[in-house]
Amino acid sequence: MPTRHTISALVENHFGVLCRISGLFSSRGFNIDSLSVGETEDPTISRMTIVVKGDDRVLEQVVKQLNRLVDVIRVIDITQGEFVERELALINVKTRIDTRSEIIQIAEIFRAGVVDVSTNSMTIEVTGKEDKIAAMINMLRDYGINEIARTGTVALLRDSQMKQVAGGGE
Amino acid sequence: MPTRHTISALVENHFGVLCRISGLFSSRGFNIDSLSVGETEDPTISRMTIVVKGDDRVLEQVVKQLNRLVDVIRVIDITQGEFVERELALINVKTRIDTRSEIIQIAEIFRAGVVDVSTNSMTIEVTGKEDKIAAMINMLRDYGINEIARTGTVALLRDSQMKQVAGGGE
Repeated sequence: MPTRHTISALVENHFGVLCRISGLFSSRGFNIDSLSVGETEDPTISRMTIVVKGDDRVLEQVVKQLNRLVDVIRVIDITQGEFVERELALINVKTRIDTRSEIIQIAEIFRAGVVDVSTNSMTIEVTGKEDKIAAMINMLRDYGINEIARTGTVALLRDSQMKQVAGGGE
Repeated sequence: MPTRHTISALVENHFGVLCRISGLFSSRGFNIDSLSVGETEDPTISRMTIVVKGDDRVLEQVVKQLNRLVDVIRVIDITQGEFVERELALINVKTRIDTRSEIIQIAEIFRAGVVDVSTNSMTIEVTGKEDKIAAMINMLRDYGINEIARTGTVALLRDSQMKQVAGGGE
């Protein structure tokens, strides 16, 4: 059964590594739901977060293979431990005079913020887990969505878990 | 002079396209600061947002080249118009009993939220433009940062600009 995994990879900041890592997942039949790459505290090191769906055993092998790649410092399956995960989405939704307050109300319920507004649309910023973002998009769909930009998920292990899981893959 | 550009690409949801796009930037000497890929309203189409630094004229050529690639629906340089951009970061920072309230205060100033806490650390979620995130990381550095996960920037054109710039590249 394909399950959802969040993979966190610390890599040297060379761009080829992105292709090699994402390529390894694709070639093993994993569907990549989202991917984010950003700098860490050390500008020579980037953190990639990849959300994939696929077979648990195969994934374990892929993570082991990734850990052997040049430019890869450490890859862990964060889903093995307790973790915090978040995603950000910008959603541009159609508005009319009579729907604007309804949409603002929906934004408030989801603790989202209005970051831009024009006569016939509004851009909303929302953060949360993937399912919260999906729920908000569902609510806004009836009004007509013009555009969405999602960052994809990033995740950190909860503090108590950090050493345990990070060490477990080695 | 290298300037910072935010490139937004709508692509078919095939993973090879990520490598071809990021590869084209690398081969033309652009430094990729961040990259995010996530689904749009249509699950067969993904939106990639890439922040790059490099020469303006070369970038214009690269964007034209990208628009000719298979699986690429549309690539625009969002920086040509007015736009809203946001990034999310999870920051795990060291805490002691006597520093915890200071750190919470810093989080409040940046309208950031505490999403996890343990006896000797705290995980903070902050969203904003790149420079705001950088400022917050700077403030927290003195306390000792354990880990950072950043999504990279996503951006949408402001509504009035959407058609203008999106059409301008064709």
